[in-house]
Amino acid sequence: MSDKVRIALDAMGGDHGPAVIVAGADLALKRYSETEFLFFGNSAQVAPLLDARPALKSASRLVHTDVAVRMDDKPSQALRYGRWKSSMWLAIDAVKKGDADVVVSGGNTGALMAMSKFNLKTLPGIDRPAIAALWPTLRGESVVLDLGASIGADAEHLVDLAVMGAAMARILFGLARPTVGLLNIGVEEVKGLEQVREAGAILREQNLPGLDYRGFVEGNDIGKGAVDVVVTEGFAGNIALKTAEGTARQIAEYLKSAMSRTLSAKIGYFFARSAFRRLREMMDTRKANGGVFLGLNGIVIKSHGGADAEGFAAAIELGHGVVRDELLAKITAALGRPGKPPLAAVGGVAS
Amino acid sequence: MSDKVRIALDAMGGDHGPAVIVAGADLALKRYSETEFLFFGNSAQVAPLLDARPALKSASRLVHTDVAVRMDDKPSQALRYGRWKSSMWLAIDAVKKGDADVVVSGGNTGALMAMSKFNLKTLPGIDRPAIAALWPTLRGESVVLDLGASIGADAEHLVDLAVMGAAMARILFGLARPTVGLLNIGVEEVKGLEQVREAGAILREQNLPGLDYRGFVEGNDIGKGAVDVVVTEGFAGNIALKTAEGTARQIAEYLKSAMSRTLSAKIGYFFARSAFRRLREMMDTRKANGGVFLGLNGIVIKSHGGADAEGFAAAIELGHGVVRDELLAKITAALGRPGKPPLAAVGGVAS
Repeated sequence: MSDKVRIALDAMGGDHGPAVIVAGADLALKRYSETEFLFFGNSAQVAPLLDARPALKSASRLVHTDVAVRMDDKPSQALRYGRWKSSMWLAIDAVKKGDADVVVSGGNTGALMAMSKFNLKTLPGIDRPAIAALWPTLRGESVVLDLGASIGADAEHLVDLAVMGAAMARILFGLARPTVGLLNIGVEEVKGLEQVREAGAILREQNLPGLDYRGFVEGNDIGKGAVDVVVTEGFAGNIALKTAEGTARQIAEYLKSAMSRTLSAKIGYFFARSAFRRLREMMDTRKANGGVFLGLNGIVIKSHGGADAEGFAAAIELGHGVVRDELLAKITAALGRPGKPPLAAVGGVAS
Repeated sequence: MSDKVRIALDAMGGDHGPAVIVAGADLALKRYSETEFLFFGNSAQVAPLLDARPALKSASRLVHTDVAVRMDDKPSQALRYGRWKSSMWLAIDAVKKGDADVVVSGGNTGALMAMSKFNLKTLPGIDRPAIAALWPTLRGESVVLDLGASIGADAEHLVDLAVMGAAMARILFGLARPTVGLLNIGVEEVKGLEQVREAGAILREQNLPGLDYRGFVEGNDIGKGAVDVVVTEGFAGNIALKTAEGTARQIAEYLKSAMSRTLSAKIGYFFARSAFRRLREMMDTRKANGGVFLGLNGIVIKSHGGADAEGFAAAIELGHGVVRDELLAKITAALGRPGKPPLAAVGGVAS
């Protein structure tokens, strides 16, 4: 592995096409100069965008393909026409071949997951990969997973999620033993799903060295940062994430309307504008863009399809962080420890 | 039914005891003078609180019991020692007997649901009651259900939830045909749960007169107010609600810290303080307190156990609204319509 962080980009993935992706890479390069990019996409569209950015161009290589996975195709369709030749496949394949350390795509999530699974394969002992993201909290950030890679989870899969999420928290937060909670509901008559209770019992029993299991958490505990890793199955996880994003946007709208209603409020806004800028940054859901596919023999980052350049840059920087901290060998030791299950590795670490 | 709205209160339910509940009733009475209260609880604790509020006292009756359901008991335990005699049971029983139009309790949710089911029974065709709440949105409010009455839902139960939620929206929002969405996740490879898809097909097929089915919605659509009624099973619904509450609190913390960091921000805050007051009101999760149990032969409102007087008043006012609008006969006509399934009624309407 070189000293550079080598990032493969699916230049055709996302709702807004290559312009946003190239602009996002440019932003990321300005912040992390030790980055190299491998763009896969239609050179007629991508090359002019790179030509306009000489610094980025000199840090990049462009591989042409005229096949792009459509945003609304089923994974099976996308695999049929896009395998071996689409920009998405080729970007994933760059990680497989060792030409890149991580792949970032804003394309069709289902297709990206299917192609990643097909090409990179899952880690030993992992049947179903997961999507994890960093969730901004009052204490900093937490890892939340699964955000929709698969629906439903038995106790064993929840334990896998806990182990994978804890590995990600160890790497990204530099914690020796991150705290882990299972997302549950506090309504007494039901006391949560059978499998969630069972997973809790297993985690308590196993008392794993790499994570500190703290029991159940509820939806409102996520934003508090009650634990470093929040574990749930993909349906509830996806709904929690989207609901939080929606609430943040809703409150931003309230704030905007409250601050423009009266002259006095407008004056107040003027004086407090740097505070508002700070607040906007903290509430900026773009900054939290990027889901990490865990459980694969390679690191795959999914950006929101609708991300703008800033959002796409955040996804690239997340990939950069995962790779860079791996370079710093934060978990190499953990992986080599005897008796350590291979699933304790974040996707890509074992490759 | 009298011209008054008669509200039965479990004076012992909730984390803070009778003081908060009596204070909440006092607040609600000030806003809605045509209210009568029936308090059930320990008179040694409740009577002095009423004595201190002559206006409330003259609108109230107090029934003594020294049995109170504990917050952390299992429903089966609570039923064993609390049936026939606890403040919770007696308050529910007042609705059953026709002495009250609605019951409000901040007590143990599981016990409240179990006792309500046991005493009031479910409406014909409804196996499992649901918990619904009003969710503040950018367009106003939406009904969201189920918030945790039961976990998991087959297609038929989801359709029941849609019908009950739409009835609640018709009553509370005065809409003839509220729009309804099924909460789902937008990740393409899984495209949501089988039963959610099936429920969507049934709703589209049936094309019911009392609701306008609009398809799937995602978590971020709730806050937008994309539909009047959001339907999901109880686990995901509870997590969505709690996550939104947590996010609102988190942003309120960010705001507070941003506005107190610099002198300039403090000056800005001073000028914009009425705008901030307005914002705080819009973000006040207490105002949205109160879950309505749907599908029972009687109206039961669950307040947050941790609610303060303002929060408890909101739960009482929600009950008041459901009852008052029933008095205004907004749905009597709908119920009488031939061929209308009985489950189209909100709990209590059919009683």
